[in-house]
Amino acid sequence: MTETLEATGLAIDDVTADRLFRTARTVTSFAESDVTDQQLAAVYDLIKWGPTAMNVSPLRVLVVRTPEARQRLVATMPEGNQERVANAPVTLVLAYDPEFHERLDVLVPHLPGAREIFAGDDAARADAARTNALLQAGYLVVGLRAAGLAAGPMHGLYDGIDAEFFAESGWKGFLVVNVSAVEGADTSRPRAPRLEFDEVAQVV
Amino acid sequence: MTETLEATGLAIDDVTADRLFRTARTVTSFAESDVTDQQLAAVYDLIKWGPTAMNVSPLRVLVVRTPEARQRLVATMPEGNQERVANAPVTLVLAYDPEFHERLDVLVPHLPGAREIFAGDDAARADAARTNALLQAGYLVVGLRAAGLAAGPMHGLYDGIDAEFFAESGWKGFLVVNVSAVEGADTSRPRAPRLEFDEVAQVV
Repeated sequence: MTETLEATGLAIDDVTADRLFRTARTVTSFAESDVTDQQLAAVYDLIKWGPTAMNVSPLRVLVVRTPEARQRLVATMPEGNQERVANAPVTLVLAYDPEFHERLDVLVPHLPGAREIFAGDDAARADAARTNALLQAGYLVVGLRAAGLAAGPMHGLYDGIDAEFFAESGWKGFLVVNVSAVEGADTSRPRAPRLEFDEVAQVV
Repeated sequence: MTETLEATGLAIDDVTADRLFRTARTVTSFAESDVTDQQLAAVYDLIKWGPTAMNVSPLRVLVVRTPEARQRLVATMPEGNQERVANAPVTLVLAYDPEFHERLDVLVPHLPGAREIFAGDDAARADAARTNALLQAGYLVVGLRAAGLAAGPMHGLYDGIDAEFFAESGWKGFLVVNVSAVEGADTSRPRAPRLEFDEVAQVV
């Protein structure tokens, strides 16, 4: 561990650093594989501990598994994303709950007035929901990889998804993530470059 | 490792799962400690590999380190957050670059027209920048912990930060993260509950 620390500046081992970030790839093609609800629950039970502002925890997840549900989802997607969704073992629709404040009695027991802070301000609540759910989505991508799964997030337009799946719950979809039990190393495209630290950071 | 997999459904060991998520806590008080730019660069070199849509990678980071810069930042913060920022060894202002498309020649070499997709649509570009930078912020919180650091994210209002620090770069701040070399286990408040998987997930 000390050696790893000296070599990379990290407190986690190289295999884990590779698994979570360095060699993990976005999956775009899928071999036949199973992803169980138990695996997804294990991922959630890990990443639910990631921090959100005031512990609002607005992330919600639609697990699209049956052929019928998959077809409904495919029909809402832009054409370029349809094949991936059609072929992924499981696809997650990540959403936020604009009514997350109704759970703050459970989530924020140390601050009894938490619900009321958000109840009267729909715009502030929507912003807090989307912002914190996106942070949680970052945790979830890492968490899927921590469970040995491969994640294929696809940003796009989600109005069709909300109408098709969330008319009753009021959830708002913001990211579709294909999930596979097979790691994404077989993706067709060479890895794209990243910007260097001194290109993205200013120190003052 | 097999035993861990069976017990938790995870492919990472328990110490790492604890470090990254399960026992990691948001830091709100700080012992004297050093956080070096080398450590922050190591964190970035890990999490830069996390996926963003089309590899747009819009996250930018202001590292606030000197007493003078810290005072300028404190002056922009709401009163309830000032003490933490004043006392943290280092504070990161996470921002996105609305002009991220100017780097897509480097980031998206496999798609030569990528810059032009975003160049003409400021609203779509701002949405892509904020959305993907927030995903990257989730990776960054995990990455700080992977480097043995503690993270204290604080969501709030950032207009003052943009005026004070980003007038020239045009970056837009969206999250302030205090960073400490001391893990956050000494935080004063008991850990708040989380929602269970079957409360946040629907399977269809």
